[in-house]
Amino acid sequence: MKELTPSEKQPAGSLVIVGLGLIGGSIALAARQRRLFKHIVGVGRDAARLQQAQSAGLIDAFSLDETAVVAQARLVVVCTPVSCIADDVVRLAPHLAEEAVITDAGSTKQNICQRIDAALGAGHRFVGSHPLAGSEKSGFEHARADLYEGATCVVTPAAQGVPALTPIISEFWTSLGAQVQIMSAPEHDLALAMTSHLPHLVASALASSVPEKDLSLAATGFADTTRIAAGNPELWTSIFMENSGAMLQAAAEFQHRLETLIAAIRDQQPDRLSALLTAGKRRRDGWNQQSVSQQ
Amino acid sequence: MKELTPSEKQPAGSLVIVGLGLIGGSIALAARQRRLFKHIVGVGRDAARLQQAQSAGLIDAFSLDETAVVAQARLVVVCTPVSCIADDVVRLAPHLAEEAVITDAGSTKQNICQRIDAALGAGHRFVGSHPLAGSEKSGFEHARADLYEGATCVVTPAAQGVPALTPIISEFWTSLGAQVQIMSAPEHDLALAMTSHLPHLVASALASSVPEKDLSLAATGFADTTRIAAGNPELWTSIFMENSGAMLQAAAEFQHRLETLIAAIRDQQPDRLSALLTAGKRRRDGWNQQSVSQQ
Repeated sequence: MKELTPSEKQPAGSLVIVGLGLIGGSIALAARQRRLFKHIVGVGRDAARLQQAQSAGLIDAFSLDETAVVAQARLVVVCTPVSCIADDVVRLAPHLAEEAVITDAGSTKQNICQRIDAALGAGHRFVGSHPLAGSEKSGFEHARADLYEGATCVVTPAAQGVPALTPIISEFWTSLGAQVQIMSAPEHDLALAMTSHLPHLVASALASSVPEKDLSLAATGFADTTRIAAGNPELWTSIFMENSGAMLQAAAEFQHRLETLIAAIRDQQPDRLSALLTAGKRRRDGWNQQSVSQQ
Repeated sequence: MKELTPSEKQPAGSLVIVGLGLIGGSIALAARQRRLFKHIVGVGRDAARLQQAQSAGLIDAFSLDETAVVAQARLVVVCTPVSCIADDVVRLAPHLAEEAVITDAGSTKQNICQRIDAALGAGHRFVGSHPLAGSEKSGFEHARADLYEGATCVVTPAAQGVPALTPIISEFWTSLGAQVQIMSAPEHDLALAMTSHLPHLVASALASSVPEKDLSLAATGFADTTRIAAGNPELWTSIFMENSGAMLQAAAEFQHRLETLIAAIRDQQPDRLSALLTAGKRRRDGWNQQSVSQQ
């Protein structure tokens, strides 16, 4: 990432990562392996954990004094829980150096961008990011330098932000190996509600629906469709609440599709049912081909 | 399976498999490997396919003259599509030898048992079976001698059938390595609607809901929850239609659970939402433990 490489003219500048879990830790490892920054600094509330991350070689230094560290940064990436991101950015942004940029890694974007726009006003230096990579595991112990290689990262400019910063953030993610898609925050949120958040809600409803006595008959179909229902309830509650508008829209679309299938069964219309199942199969097969061609 | 072993007193008797696909072919291979019958005979409509199955070593002989072959059988297993099973059993049962038994391998049971009860009346020799094993693949080329090892097989006595035949059919599946559960046909159908058929309907509705343009953002959550939507639409249409009563009941339960989750989002109740997601997670984790302990 050219803009952030230290040069004679610019101070070296550091990469500051706020919140050093799986996501933040993997950014640290990936940036370090690629020598994108002179220093990588971790910021958090738990000195013992940050010390462990430094000992593990993820970061060069850590600090509990976020204001001082952010003032030295070329790039700040906020990797805190999705419900904390807007507050964290609003608190940190006034301390940024003149050329510095701040981004995040949250799973929802509209609420975050709107709150930051409202609090910081025109010309702020935040650009939203959502790298679509992760794991059921959490904690920097599971961080991987290659987590973002080949992953999609959505970059969402905020309405009141500086437009010229969007390509800088895009290049940052590209330099970590990700494939960047730039879209508006509402577009992102609806697309993610459809492809990620709705499947989680449906998986949870499905797991709850099966009576305990019937579980011994459950096989691979149940296993696949409900696997993500085992995810962290607090994490998903935050995501659903942050993205409630798009979630309700996605859920209404799903309910309509399901009701159409149910009606074909109720009305004993096998041809209609078969046509609907064929449409579902085609959509799924189409995704399979897309994802194979991406590999 | 003692009852079916040839002895001095009884004629040897054969195993007759009607419909030689993945399920029927795997029964043939498993029975042959265990030397449970003197002869294994395949019955179907396509002589060329049956000849291939014989050449591949699945069966000892084949015939297009089902009546003659069935008269020589100790056990007939009907492995035709679920919508054909009742008709096939009703047509073949009058030709069975005195001590012979007939069963099936269909995914739904109540409709099949009721139609057979109605057509054959008291004292018929049909017992329902549903081995919970299979694959996305079809055709006897994918048959495996170990398909039923460790699998659950539900055995459902028909109301008008001879009760003493239920243990004979149970022992047959046990001898192929399956773990047998005996339950009533309505119990089976509702449990399978919940654990197998409903997940398929939901996966299909979910796959259809995601707009094509958003597919590039779909990741593992979408992959898992919609995998079974790629199944054969004709096969699943038959299953849903055969099991429509239980399906509608299972779907109503799911719709209610989903609506409860959606209401918690709509009403901005994170604590309630988190409690519901935790309940879904517990049910899923509980199944995980069950299925691990079964291995």
